[in-house]
Amino acid sequence: MISLCGDSRPRLSVGAQPRGVFVTARISNIRTHNLCLLGFGNVNRTLVRLLADRADELRSRYGISYRITGIASRRLGWIANPNGMDPDAYVDEKSVERALLPAKSQESNHTLSNVQDWLSAAQADILFEATSLNVRTGQPAVDHIRAALRHGAHAITANKGPIVHAYRELRDLAAAQGKKFLFESTVMDGVPIFSLFDQLPAIHLQGFHGILNSTTNVILGEMEQGLTFDQALKKAQQLGVAETDATHDIDGWDAAVKTAALVTVLMDFPIRLNEDEIEREGIRDLTPQALRNAKRDGWPFKLVCRAHRAGDSVKASVKPEKVLASSPMGKISGTSSYVYFETDIFPGLAITEENPGLYATAYGMLADFVRAVRD
Amino acid sequence: MISLCGDSRPRLSVGAQPRGVFVTARISNIRTHNLCLLGFGNVNRTLVRLLADRADELRSRYGISYRITGIASRRLGWIANPNGMDPDAYVDEKSVERALLPAKSQESNHTLSNVQDWLSAAQADILFEATSLNVRTGQPAVDHIRAALRHGAHAITANKGPIVHAYRELRDLAAAQGKKFLFESTVMDGVPIFSLFDQLPAIHLQGFHGILNSTTNVILGEMEQGLTFDQALKKAQQLGVAETDATHDIDGWDAAVKTAALVTVLMDFPIRLNEDEIEREGIRDLTPQALRNAKRDGWPFKLVCRAHRAGDSVKASVKPEKVLASSPMGKISGTSSYVYFETDIFPGLAITEENPGLYATAYGMLADFVRAVRD
Repeated sequence: MISLCGDSRPRLSVGAQPRGVFVTARISNIRTHNLCLLGFGNVNRTLVRLLADRADELRSRYGISYRITGIASRRLGWIANPNGMDPDAYVDEKSVERALLPAKSQESNHTLSNVQDWLSAAQADILFEATSLNVRTGQPAVDHIRAALRHGAHAITANKGPIVHAYRELRDLAAAQGKKFLFESTVMDGVPIFSLFDQLPAIHLQGFHGILNSTTNVILGEMEQGLTFDQALKKAQQLGVAETDATHDIDGWDAAVKTAALVTVLMDFPIRLNEDEIEREGIRDLTPQALRNAKRDGWPFKLVCRAHRAGDSVKASVKPEKVLASSPMGKISGTSSYVYFETDIFPGLAITEENPGLYATAYGMLADFVRAVRD
Repeated sequence: MISLCGDSRPRLSVGAQPRGVFVTARISNIRTHNLCLLGFGNVNRTLVRLLADRADELRSRYGISYRITGIASRRLGWIANPNGMDPDAYVDEKSVERALLPAKSQESNHTLSNVQDWLSAAQADILFEATSLNVRTGQPAVDHIRAALRHGAHAITANKGPIVHAYRELRDLAAAQGKKFLFESTVMDGVPIFSLFDQLPAIHLQGFHGILNSTTNVILGEMEQGLTFDQALKKAQQLGVAETDATHDIDGWDAAVKTAALVTVLMDFPIRLNEDEIEREGIRDLTPQALRNAKRDGWPFKLVCRAHRAGDSVKASVKPEKVLASSPMGKISGTSSYVYFETDIFPGLAITEENPGLYATAYGMLADFVRAVRD
């Protein structure tokens, strides 16, 4: 995941007038959707800015209007106003204090103990779930999504945990409720991987390999240039790529959870994160010397994700591998990512994402929003 | 386009039981669709085999059943039977004679002068249009698609001509009729490029570049290995990659029409094929010596397609360019293809198709069929 860093409100640069695809008729019915944001860190804050930037286009091309009726986070508790609220009022402590002066606002905050109450108070149509990953249980994100679907809202998440720990349950609950459970931002920053396969009916995915974790890719690249592990990690953090606690990335958990998400959804096999099913090895044991030697020999190390069918099962791994420097994986540097799918129709179908922009992850959620409500 | 060669009925090898994505509920309503095939060469014949191979899966996972109720070609004229027919009866002259013995069949053939009559007689729900490309006018494919939409059928084509010559008209006609006009097989053999952008709402495509013509890519590769142009062309024909008349490929027309299709649909700019809008240069002037030298220097020639916005317009080109051997385009060999999209959200989003299978183009039409009827 790419975090925002530096100026907290970068502007979008759009080089051309909005143009779209497959949209022809003038939109006559505009529907306004009530949006609720759970977790109010970089992803959902960026989503707010992106939604504002694209508001006119969503309205004119897709007939989609929105208002933000709920914000919730550990810091804020929950806040709801079914008439809509200004999310900018909640970006820092001072503005929160101002916004919640009783005389100034209909909004009031509550402890985040009952998500259902919040969604009801906010009259939520869509939940954007962007809390942190819990590798072991997927909680509390699983509960949040369950609550949203039971409430009758579409549930959109940037959190991989619920897919690995509760995909089938949440998918079936969504179907039963006639709502969508979408999660395009969980792998490759919102590049439409899951949506792509939704456009590939009756195809059979035999396996895949790729590079799906930016933090380790940046660290390995910096160490090849001569930095120590600690220096490289610090650089990745300064770049806004690595989080303060980068353990999940470094030990291969983030890549393993992404691999598991792809296996679970695209190969219809609910793989578990234990060592029997996903062999997992991080990058801690790679020395700068080993990395430099490998790079010099034309076979640099990358943290490679793999999965393939083995009988009725799927075997997967995440571990450092030497790859040919001139191969597609050998050329994935910095925050770029790559995945190569083997299918019975397309023997090799590969997607490369080069240098994702600051808005990529949030865009995946915006696109999920459009997908959820336009069908 | 990859033609079938050798054994006319290769079997699909499917390494695993059918598995799908996002499909959960048991299918209770099976709907049978009447399919009509216009043009009965490699693409539609392969489609027939692929449909038969996936029939159980289409039924059980998507609730889709079908019967073929019409076949038409210059050789056959048109044949219709709303109760369904066996397409194998029409693959060669002998079987056609047998099938059309009046005592043996309800079917009878007519001159292909009035497509509307045929579609009515066949009670068509879907037209699969797979006639040959007419670069100058897009005809008669445009008329066929118009007739299908007016009849009330979905129109699916593997023919690029109608997109370049009549995209907006056909798109709007389809919308007015509440039917789909789909053409995923026209670029990259059915890799879901157009469908991918349909999953990217409110994104802005600034330009793209890529390698989209297999025949020239195979010829250039063979000439680098020492063959003359004529030998390389013959080899491409023997491989089933190049058609008997490969002029369209060699002179860059096929690549130019694909480029124009992408520009027209994905950039919403109806670019024309004249030299002012698409600079076009084929591979005839490249000598084996020049190709070998370029390859030796690490900068091989490729027939590169490019498009970029220029003010309110789009400029495009198809011409031989030297590309770095180790770059993504430099590594596209044989029948593989590649396209790199520049968008405001994803600065670089690239799709690589390696060694497309025999079924890739027909699969694009099958996938269009599912897309058309499942929404």
